[in-house]
Amino acid sequence: MTRVAFIGLGNMGGPMALNLLRAGHQVHAFDLSEQALARLTAEGAKAAATAAAAVEGAEVIFSMLPAGRHVEQLYLDDSEGDCLLDLIDASTPVVDCSTIAAETARKVASAAAARGRRMLDAPVSGGVGGAEAGTLTFMIGGDAELVEQVRPLFEIMGRNVFHAGPAGAGQVAKMCNNMLLAIQMAGTAEALQLGVANGLDPAVLSNIMQQSSGGNWTLNVYNPWPGVMEGVPASRGYQGGFQVDLMLKDLALALEGAAASSQTTPMGSLARSLYALHKKTGAEGAADAGSLDFSSIQQLYSR
Amino acid sequence: MTRVAFIGLGNMGGPMALNLLRAGHQVHAFDLSEQALARLTAEGAKAAATAAAAVEGAEVIFSMLPAGRHVEQLYLDDSEGDCLLDLIDASTPVVDCSTIAAETARKVASAAAARGRRMLDAPVSGGVGGAEAGTLTFMIGGDAELVEQVRPLFEIMGRNVFHAGPAGAGQVAKMCNNMLLAIQMAGTAEALQLGVANGLDPAVLSNIMQQSSGGNWTLNVYNPWPGVMEGVPASRGYQGGFQVDLMLKDLALALEGAAASSQTTPMGSLARSLYALHKKTGAEGAADAGSLDFSSIQQLYSR
Amino acid sequence: MTRVAFIGLGNMGGPMALNLLRAGHQVHAFDLSEQALARLTAEGAKAAATAAAAVEGAEVIFSMLPAGRHVEQLYLDDSEGDCLLDLIDASTPVVDCSTIAAETARKVASAAAARGRRMLDAPVSGGVGGAEAGTLTFMIGGDAELVEQVRPLFEIMGRNVFHAGPAGAGQVAKMCNNMLLAIQMAGTAEALQLGVANGLDPAVLSNIMQQSSGGNWTLNVYNPWPGVMEGVPASRGYQGGFQVDLMLKDLALALEGAAASSQTTPMGSLARSLYALHKKTGAEGAADAGSLDFSSIQQLYSR
Amino acid sequence: MTRVAFIGLGNMGGPMALNLLRAGHQVHAFDLSEQALARLTAEGAKAAATAAAAVEGAEVIFSMLPAGRHVEQLYLDDSEGDCLLDLIDASTPVVDCSTIAAETARKVASAAAARGRRMLDAPVSGGVGGAEAGTLTFMIGGDAELVEQVRPLFEIMGRNVFHAGPAGAGQVAKMCNNMLLAIQMAGTAEALQLGVANGLDPAVLSNIMQQSSGGNWTLNVYNPWPGVMEGVPASRGYQGGFQVDLMLKDLALALEGAAASSQTTPMGSLARSLYALHKKTGAEGAADAGSLDFSSIQQLYSR
Repeated sequence: MTRVAFIGLGNMGGPMALNLLRAGHQVHAFDLSEQALARLTAEGAKAAATAAAAVEGAEVIFSMLPAGRHVEQLYLDDSEGDCLLDLIDASTPVVDCSTIAAETARKVASAAAARGRRMLDAPVSGGVGGAEAGTLTFMIGGDAELVEQVRPLFEIMGRNVFHAGPAGAGQVAKMCNNMLLAIQMAGTAEALQLGVANGLDPAVLSNIMQQSSGGNWTLNVYNPWPGVMEGVPASRGYQGGFQVDLMLKDLALALEGAAASSQTTPMGSLARSLYALHKKTGAEGAADAGSLDFSSIQQLYSR
Repeated sequence: MTRVAFIGLGNMGGPMALNLLRAGHQVHAFDLSEQALARLTAEGAKAAATAAAAVEGAEVIFSMLPAGRHVEQLYLDDSEGDCLLDLIDASTPVVDCSTIAAETARKVASAAAARGRRMLDAPVSGGVGGAEAGTLTFMIGGDAELVEQVRPLFEIMGRNVFHAGPAGAGQVAKMCNNMLLAIQMAGTAEALQLGVANGLDPAVLSNIMQQSSGGNWTLNVYNPWPGVMEGVPASRGYQGGFQVDLMLKDLALALEGAAASSQTTPMGSLARSLYALHKKTGAEGAADAGSLDFSSIQQLYSR
Repeated sequence: MTRVAFIGLGNMGGPMALNLLRAGHQVHAFDLSEQALARLTAEGAKAAATAAAAVEGAEVIFSMLPAGRHVEQLYLDDSEGDCLLDLIDASTPVVDCSTIAAETARKVASAAAARGRRMLDAPVSGGVGGAEAGTLTFMIGGDAELVEQVRPLFEIMGRNVFHAGPAGAGQVAKMCNNMLLAIQMAGTAEALQLGVANGLDPAVLSNIMQQSSGGNWTLNVYNPWPGVMEGVPASRGYQGGFQVDLMLKDLALALEGAAASSQTTPMGSLARSLYALHKKTGAEGAADAGSLDFSSIQQLYSR
Repeated sequence: MTRVAFIGLGNMGGPMALNLLRAGHQVHAFDLSEQALARLTAEGAKAAATAAAAVEGAEVIFSMLPAGRHVEQLYLDDSEGDCLLDLIDASTPVVDCSTIAAETARKVASAAAARGRRMLDAPVSGGVGGAEAGTLTFMIGGDAELVEQVRPLFEIMGRNVFHAGPAGAGQVAKMCNNMLLAIQMAGTAEALQLGVANGLDPAVLSNIMQQSSGGNWTLNVYNPWPGVMEGVPASRGYQGGFQVDLMLKDLALALEGAAASSQTTPMGSLARSLYALHKKTGAEGAADAGSLDFSSIQQLYSR
C-alpha cells in the first residue's frame, strides 16, 4: 500500500484516483470543488483541506489539472511563503498528468530539479472512459528510473505506459499524437464521405481501407460514420467520447508548440480550422458542436 | 489451367502476368513494347500481335494500362470496325486492373453490358513490389458472382481481394484509400518532425503513436523517417516504393472525383498541394522529387 | 453597321447581344431556347433557325455558351456533314466569349486555324450586371490585330478590353484572375470576422485595410460584410451578383488548369474547399448556398 | 516645439525619432544599445540614461519595441519600485508603436488607465522604408480625442493615421490587415505562376488582374514577380522591404488572436504554413529565406 496525494479530481482525476483507491492504496485528495472531494471520500479517500495538507507524508504525488496556469500556480506559487515544491520530500516522485504546453512542463520540472525534487510530466490519452476503466495511455517525460518506480501505479490507471524522453517529452509526445489523430479523423471522414457520395457502402469502404494502406486507429476502433461500428460515439449521436472542444485545445497546444519551435504544420493547422468551422456551423438549436465527440467532424462533410 | 489474355505488360502488368504464368496458366500477352512482350514470352507466354489476337479464345481477359484514355481506346475504339468488346465471348470475364477515373470505368463497363459482356474494374494497391511478390490488394467493382469466379486468379496475384460494389466501385475505393493514405503520410511526417524538433527520438515517438490513437498503416510498416524502420524506402534514400508522381496522379483522380460529385476534400487538396510543393522544392541536381518514394514528403518538413 | 451573328442568348449572352443591337448593329441570333430567342427578336434581332443559318453572311461571330463541351459541339461537330467552322467565311472573325478550359479554347482555335479561320477566346468578367450595363471586362487570347479589328464591338459590350496573349490566353487570364478573386474574397471575409470578433467596427476596419497594404477590389467595391457598403449583394441578403456555384465552376477550371500544367495552388485549392463547405453548410430550408452571391462566404466565418 | 520621449531606437524607432527631430521637436531618447543612441544624439537628440530619465518632463512619450514582453517590462515592471507609468505626468499622452498582441496592449492600457494615465496603441505599417521616408500608416487604438491631440506628431512620421477604436484596436486592425496582406501576396504569387506556366507574360497578367476583380495592393505597388515593377524588392533579389521573418511574427500574432477569440482563420493559417515552408525550403547556402522580403514567397511557387 502506497500513500498517494491526488490533486485535481475532475472528470479525469476523479476516476483515476478512484482506481488507485480501489487497488488498495491510501489516497489523500484535494480539489477546490467540495462536491468532487466528497465523491472520493465517500469511496474511502482522505480529504485534505489544502494541496499542502494533501502532499504531507505522501510517497507519490499526482496532479491532474485543466491548464498550464493551474499547474504553475499549484507547484510554483510562493506568494504566501513556500511553494508546494518546497514542502515535498526529496524522495517523493511528483507526477503531473495534466495536458499542458511542453514549455510549461519543462519550467515546472526545472524548478523542481532546482530544489532536488523529482518530477514527471505524464499526460494521458483515452478520455473519461479510459480513466474510469483504467485503460489510459500514459506518455511520460522525465527520468527513466523514476518512471519505473511509479510504473505499478501507472498500470493501475492505464494500460500503456510510454517513456517518451526527458522532462517535457510526455507533453511533446501527446501533442504530436493528438495532432496526428485530428488529421486522421478528418481525413477518414473526408474519405468516407467521398466514397459514399460515389455509391459505396460506408461499412464496406471502412473495411477495405482498414485492411489497406489507409488503415488507422480511427477505422479500427472509432469509426466516425453513424452505424458502421457499434458502441462508438458516431452510433449514439456523437454523445460522450472526446469532445470537439478538447480536441481544439490539444490542437492549440500543438500549433503553439510548432510555432515556438519554428516548425510548420499545414495539415494540423487545416485540421484545426476544420474543427473550428465544425464547431461553428454544427450548431443545432442554441448549442454549438463543441460538446460533441470529435468524430462528429463527419457532419461537416456529410451535411 | 485457364487460358488468360493479358494486355499491358508494364511495371505492374508484367510481373502480374508472370505470376499467372508461373501458377500454371496459359497467358496470351500483348503490349505495344516488343521488349516487354519478349520478357514475358521468354518465360513461356504466347505473344499476340494485337489485342484482338490476344483475346481470341481467352477464358479470362486482364488489362493493366497507364490511364483512362488507354482503357477507352482498348475496349471502345471502333474506328477500324468492331471494338474489342465485340470480339470477346459473352461468357468471358473482362477485368481491367488499371487505375482510372470511376466515371471512365463505369462508361466502359456500361458499353460492355450493352453488348452482354461481363466486366470488372479491379485496381490494385501494393506497387511494383506487391506485383512481383503476388501480394497486391484488389479493390473490385462489378458483379459479386463474377468476382468469385475470377477470385482464384486474383489470389495468385494478390493477398487481399475486396468486392467494393457495382461497376466503378473498385476505382472509388482506391481513390478514397489512396487519398487517405496521402493525408496520413503527410500527417505522420508532420507529427514526427514536430516531435523531433522538440527533442524526441523519432523511433520512440513512432512507437508511441503507433500504439496510441495516432496509429496508422504508415507507422506500422512504412515509416517515413530515415532509419526508424529497416527495409522501407525511407531507409534507402527514398528509392523504390511508390513514387511521388504516382501519388500525385492518384490524388488528381480523387480530387476530380470529388469535384464531379460536388464533394469537398480540404485535407486531400492540401495533401496534393504539399506533394506538388515537395516535387518542386525537393529538386536536387537536375531531377525533381517526383521519382522518389512518396514517404519522402518527410523532406518537405525536415529540410 | 456590322452584321453580327450571336449564338447563345442566356443570362450573359442575351444582354450582350442586346447592347450590340441597341448600338445600331444587325444581329442574327440563335439559341436552343425559343423564349430566349423571342426576347431578342422583340428588340429587333433576326432569329436564325440554326447556328449555321445565323453565321451565314455574318461579318463577326460571337458565341457565349455554358461549358467547353458546348463550344466544341458548336464549332467542331461534323457528325452531320461540315462543321460550323467550315461554313464561315475566312475573313470573318470568330469570337467565343464562353468561360472554358484554356485547353479546349486552344483546341477549337487550332481547328479554326487549320481551316484558315481566325478565332479569339474572349471570356468576360463583370457578371450579369456588367453584361446589362455594357461594362464587362474582356480578357482575350488570339491575334493582336484581330483584337483591334473587333475592338469597337467589344467596347460596346464592355469597359475594359485586354489582350492577354495567343490563343487560349484569354481563358488563362480569366482563371488566374478569378482564382485570385476567390482567395481575396475569402481572405477579406476572414480578416473582417477576426476584427469584428475582437471589437472592431466592420466599416472602420474595411476602411483601414482598403487604404493600407490589405487593400483589394473586394474592399473597394464589393465588401462582403452586410451594411458596410450600399448597393452590393452583402447589403441585400447576398442576392444577385456572382453566384457561389459559378465561382466553384471557375475554381474548378483554375485547379484543372493547374494540375494540367503541374502547378501547385494551395491557396486556390483551400478557397475552393471553403466555398464548397459554404455551399453545403450554408443551407437554409431546402436550398443550399450555391445560388447566393459569392461574397456570402462571409457567412461561413460569421455564423 | 514639443518635448518628446522616444524609447526604442531600432530599425523602425530610430528613423521615426529622427523625423520628429528634423521637424523641430526636442527628443529625449533611450535605448539599451549605446550605438543606436549615439546615432540619434549625433543628430541632436538628448540621450537619457534610463527610460525613467527619458520620460521626465516629456509632453508626449513614444515607444517602439520588438515584442509584448518588452512593452510589459517597460511600462509595468515595478520590481525596483515605481513602474514607469507611475512616473509619467497624468496629462502626458503615452503612445506605444510596437506591434504586439492586442491582449497585451489592452493590459498595459488598462494599467495606465488605473493610474489616470492616457495611452494609445499605435502600431505602424510601411516598414523601414516608410519609417525613413515618414510615410508610415498608423493604426491606433484608444481615446479619439487623444489621437487628435497627438495627430500632428503622427503626421510627421506617417502619411495615414487611422483611429481603429478603443484600447487594443490598433493592434487588432494591424493583425487583420497583415494577415490579409499575407494571404493576398501568396495568392498573387500563386496566380502569377499559374498564368506564366500557361504561357502568359507576367507583366501582362499583372496588368489585367490589377485592373480587374483580382486587383490588390500587391499588384498596385509591390509586384512579387522579378522585373515586372521597378524599385520593388522582387526586382532586386528580394533584398530590403519587409522580411519573411517579420511576416511570420505578424501571422503568429493574428493566429494567436484568432485562437484567443475562438475564430477560425483557414486562409491565414495556410499562408503561415506556406511562409514557414518557404523559409525552410528557400535556403541558399547557409541562410534560410527568413531575411528576404516577403514577396519572395514567389520563389516557393516558381522554383
